[in-house]
Amino acid sequence: MALLTRIRGPRDLDRLGPEQLEQLAGEIRSFLVEEVSKTGGHLGPNLGVVELTIALHRVFDSPKDKVLFDTGHQSYVHKLLTGRQDFSKLKSKGGLSGYPSRAESEHDIIENSHASTVLGWADGLAKANEVLKKHDHVVAVTGDGALTGGMAWEALNNIAAAKDRPLVIVVNDNERSYAPTIGGLANHLATLRTTDGYERFLARGKEILDRTPVVGRPLYDTLHGAKKGLKDFIAPQGMFEDLGLKYVGPIDGHDIGALESALQRAKRFGGPVIVHCITEKGRGYKPAEQDEADHFHGIGPIHPDTGLPIAAAGMDWTSVFGEEMVKLGHEREDIVAITAAMLQPVGLEKFAKAFPGRVYDVGIAEQHGAVSAAGLATGGVHPVFAVYATFLNRAFDQVLMDVALHRCGVTFVLDRAGITGTDGASHNGMWDMSILQCVPGLRIAAPRDADQVRAQLREAVEVEDAPTVVRFSKGAVGPAVAAVGRVGGMDVLRRTEEGTADVLLVSVGALAPMCLDIADLLDKQGITTTVVDPRWVKPVDEALAPLAEQHRVVVTVEDNSRVGGVGSAVAQALRDAGVDVPLRDFGIPPRFLDHASRKEVMAEIGLTAPDIARQVTGLVAKLDGRLVDSPTEAARD
Amino acid sequence: MALLTRIRGPRDLDRLGPEQLEQLAGEIRSFLVEEVSKTGGHLGPNLGVVELTIALHRVFDSPKDKVLFDTGHQSYVHKLLTGRQDFSKLKSKGGLSGYPSRAESEHDIIENSHASTVLGWADGLAKANEVLKKHDHVVAVTGDGALTGGMAWEALNNIAAAKDRPLVIVVNDNERSYAPTIGGLANHLATLRTTDGYERFLARGKEILDRTPVVGRPLYDTLHGAKKGLKDFIAPQGMFEDLGLKYVGPIDGHDIGALESALQRAKRFGGPVIVHCITEKGRGYKPAEQDEADHFHGIGPIHPDTGLPIAAAGMDWTSVFGEEMVKLGHEREDIVAITAAMLQPVGLEKFAKAFPGRVYDVGIAEQHGAVSAAGLATGGVHPVFAVYATFLNRAFDQVLMDVALHRCGVTFVLDRAGITGTDGASHNGMWDMSILQCVPGLRIAAPRDADQVRAQLREAVEVEDAPTVVRFSKGAVGPAVAAVGRVGGMDVLRRTEEGTADVLLVSVGALAPMCLDIADLLDKQGITTTVVDPRWVKPVDEALAPLAEQHRVVVTVEDNSRVGGVGSAVAQALRDAGVDVPLRDFGIPPRFLDHASRKEVMAEIGLTAPDIARQVTGLVAKLDGRLVDSPTEAARD
Repeated sequence: MALLTRIRGPRDLDRLGPEQLEQLAGEIRSFLVEEVSKTGGHLGPNLGVVELTIALHRVFDSPKDKVLFDTGHQSYVHKLLTGRQDFSKLKSKGGLSGYPSRAESEHDIIENSHASTVLGWADGLAKANEVLKKHDHVVAVTGDGALTGGMAWEALNNIAAAKDRPLVIVVNDNERSYAPTIGGLANHLATLRTTDGYERFLARGKEILDRTPVVGRPLYDTLHGAKKGLKDFIAPQGMFEDLGLKYVGPIDGHDIGALESALQRAKRFGGPVIVHCITEKGRGYKPAEQDEADHFHGIGPIHPDTGLPIAAAGMDWTSVFGEEMVKLGHEREDIVAITAAMLQPVGLEKFAKAFPGRVYDVGIAEQHGAVSAAGLATGGVHPVFAVYATFLNRAFDQVLMDVALHRCGVTFVLDRAGITGTDGASHNGMWDMSILQCVPGLRIAAPRDADQVRAQLREAVEVEDAPTVVRFSKGAVGPAVAAVGRVGGMDVLRRTEEGTADVLLVSVGALAPMCLDIADLLDKQGITTTVVDPRWVKPVDEALAPLAEQHRVVVTVEDNSRVGGVGSAVAQALRDAGVDVPLRDFGIPPRFLDHASRKEVMAEIGLTAPDIARQVTGLVAKLDGRLVDSPTEAARD
Repeated sequence: MALLTRIRGPRDLDRLGPEQLEQLAGEIRSFLVEEVSKTGGHLGPNLGVVELTIALHRVFDSPKDKVLFDTGHQSYVHKLLTGRQDFSKLKSKGGLSGYPSRAESEHDIIENSHASTVLGWADGLAKANEVLKKHDHVVAVTGDGALTGGMAWEALNNIAAAKDRPLVIVVNDNERSYAPTIGGLANHLATLRTTDGYERFLARGKEILDRTPVVGRPLYDTLHGAKKGLKDFIAPQGMFEDLGLKYVGPIDGHDIGALESALQRAKRFGGPVIVHCITEKGRGYKPAEQDEADHFHGIGPIHPDTGLPIAAAGMDWTSVFGEEMVKLGHEREDIVAITAAMLQPVGLEKFAKAFPGRVYDVGIAEQHGAVSAAGLATGGVHPVFAVYATFLNRAFDQVLMDVALHRCGVTFVLDRAGITGTDGASHNGMWDMSILQCVPGLRIAAPRDADQVRAQLREAVEVEDAPTVVRFSKGAVGPAVAAVGRVGGMDVLRRTEEGTADVLLVSVGALAPMCLDIADLLDKQGITTTVVDPRWVKPVDEALAPLAEQHRVVVTVEDNSRVGGVGSAVAQALRDAGVDVPLRDFGIPPRFLDHASRKEVMAEIGLTAPDIARQVTGLVAKLDGRLVDSPTEAARD
């Protein structure tokens, strides 16, 4: 790492010659494999952008110029080149974030990691530059996967409308988002990429680029004219130019010299321009290069030589769902599955193998996932759209206006619901049970264990006149939590012999074991507790209010924002029933959470059995005090 | 109306010859001008699709074939041809909906009116046909405006990926969504449309079409080949073909014969195909044809001969905002405005005239509106994104992850918040205060009158480190409602001399006069009331909980879904403060509302002063009973 350790900032790249840059690229790859195999992280995408990131920081002057990364998991190389080389605690508490982070560096602009946003950000920054008469450059690095998202289209359509507003768009085209990128655009990119003149073009283009000194727009036009001239026997210019965007490419994304020349010309163009770079995800790391299924997109700790996972994978929530889907697929021919470019991560790989004609990968396009599901349901089949909980935010309007308003039988399976931890603020699935509460007719299941995932998925797909949601956590699923009884549709997990108790504890989903722990702790304080798992948390079970009346206080515990979540819904249901038993709702506080392990985050926000037990004990003590006082008070009146 | 009145269903069109069809088109236009000028409604769009709709119903066999309309306001002609010719109560309670409605007709499939959805629906329906091995046709009618929305792109990308899945896409290209359509796509469509060979093409294309008998795909290919051959001197085939979609066009959208021939070929193609039709919005109605600003897109009652409004327009919420924006624009050069294809309806016309370089029409692209606003704010200016409240749903993820997570100073002005009424379920702005509650840092203002709109807009644009929302109603703004005091940041609208009272009534926004009426009614029952307007409803004012403790019951009244709205937020704030005063929250029930006037809807859902006063009276009576009983009860314990 002789060169890498001497890079403190982007300008340190200026003094390196071509051979040293090649050496640096090699050092960075070794660093990434060595470090990320220890911590886990997004290995494949970053191995693909080593040369591209070096070229970007050679040509542009960050942070004065703004270099923006779509789905910031491809920013590790950028971190290494901007003074952040301690990867030992990557994604862990106190360590580097797995995404750009403004707290880490002034070189980071966008922190979040929901895809397809960067062109919109870039359009805004470029407009601000124009209003404020600044001449900084804005460079947006996006990918063929991100371009399948509607936001990218909206942005391109806007960017193309302003011919004189400078903006450099780098399309990092590796032919896959997570899985291989699908759709008409991917086919079009493939045409640009694979025309049999491509190899010749690479050689010829490189010749032209190498011979052409950098003197601004006329030369860009010359280059462009040359390419136009070659068009017929090389590649169609295609849709980008139809939209009015200048197009440069395709460029070999692992050739630093070619990249720099293209970026220099784009920088000087004076209007919106697309630089189309072809890269190889996982480049330089054999296990990744040889993996068809893109398992190295995001990894846990692996053996660096073999690429095999170090920990044996236990049964996780996702697999439970995936296996039950296969069974359901055999039983019901009308069940189809939808994924937004995440077939494997959401557990649909086996279903896709068993029923290839009944699974739809819509691209990174949650809106289309939901609206096409409405169409599928109206057409007579039952779609199951499996998606990370946080990404469903993108499809809120479609869930509401297309699925719910039309009373479509669509099942949304929300994976990674609740606190996911190490991926940071944008990946926690802490919003779904808040925003979905107001959707008329929609039902939400929060299974507490593997048996309940299976059972509730089955209940969900039976509903044909309303949207259903099944939401579960990330990672290993815990042991089964037995019910000791039922009240209405709710499972009772613990109760006193008398049936009444001091506290009614309403447990949501995977927090059932924690809620039983809370009950144990309260027991030691002489406070009796009933614990129920409503299973379906929306609508609130009608049996809950009468049950609440048999308790002195109601406590809800959920793995979701406490604002507008299950606790609020239960509180409203009690008010509506005229039951004014005091209620306290525990959940995730309404703020963005820094990356750390799930356990660390939960400890930090007080979502633990001891914390909650302590607060409930205090509340009950207060109520006891009030009960003692109240006759006196009433008498005073 | 000799012909029109005899059309009971689409198949009645079959027996009409070319001249009769022309006559029918004329009758429909007369009908629309006469009827819609009386009731108000979407006149311009429907005058543009008369021939297209006739041709669609001649070629396709609805309801077996599914004919889908994007932004269903262009479905009036479709209604007339499918047995619905009583337009006397259009958009009124008990009358026809202004949009497709499944309750009205089996010919209607999609009810909602948020734009750009139809291609996604069509993709889903086509996939269902494939799974179920059905051979019905799916026809999606979309427009150049709707194509600027990201959902359209996501759908096109998916549709293009399945070469053998039949689907007919009709692009009704009238060069405008509401205002003229913007962006690269619009320019591209203009190229297809305005190449100087277009007129010649229309003539030539018509010749070819007229001479070609309809015998299926080979002929389609012939036609297509012919057009391909003409390509160089007529029009580029463009991006649709780049994506892999067959393209037919441009077709004169007012020539029924040409339309039928093109649709017949598309129907027989056996894969996804785009039929590009050029239509004229407002066709055949002089006041609309001569209006540059598209004032006939949606109208109130007008004089049919002149097109002038019958009622003088009073001062409305939108104008108050629009005028204050102009003042702010003069005072602060860093204030810019964003609209999603609705410059005039959201009141930004004057701002755009005064500051043409500081307003951005992003197309029907709310996601881009929000994410580019994040970029603008990060770039150093303060964007004000004015949008109908219901359409902000589209940008929830961007408000959360791009604006709020990045602590951007962006102001969202939500027009048409609350019950809008006559446009039906999809246009009521009843979701925003529910879904936005969980967004960390975001602040929501609900001004109660014109003065407060001005004042709170000014307060909002002062916030530079968090998103702010200013939401107000549709239509005429009422007289000023004076404050009689202040508690914390809240205006007190009414109070007792002692400062304490039975009821604390929390009024949200435009409902202030109603809340004062409620207080009057309670007064007659001997119940005293404090009325406060929090002005900023999120976060809940810290002064509210202490104030609540001085009352026996808290009542909230809001013009938003009562699920997860201000009432829930207030209830949670009281719980968090340990204030267990009983609370009742009034708002819109969690269901979709049928079209009717705002007043009728509010009466139907019990959001009126007498209804609420009656319920509060009952609650207070119950509390009185409990107070009388409680010493006994306590003594029993």
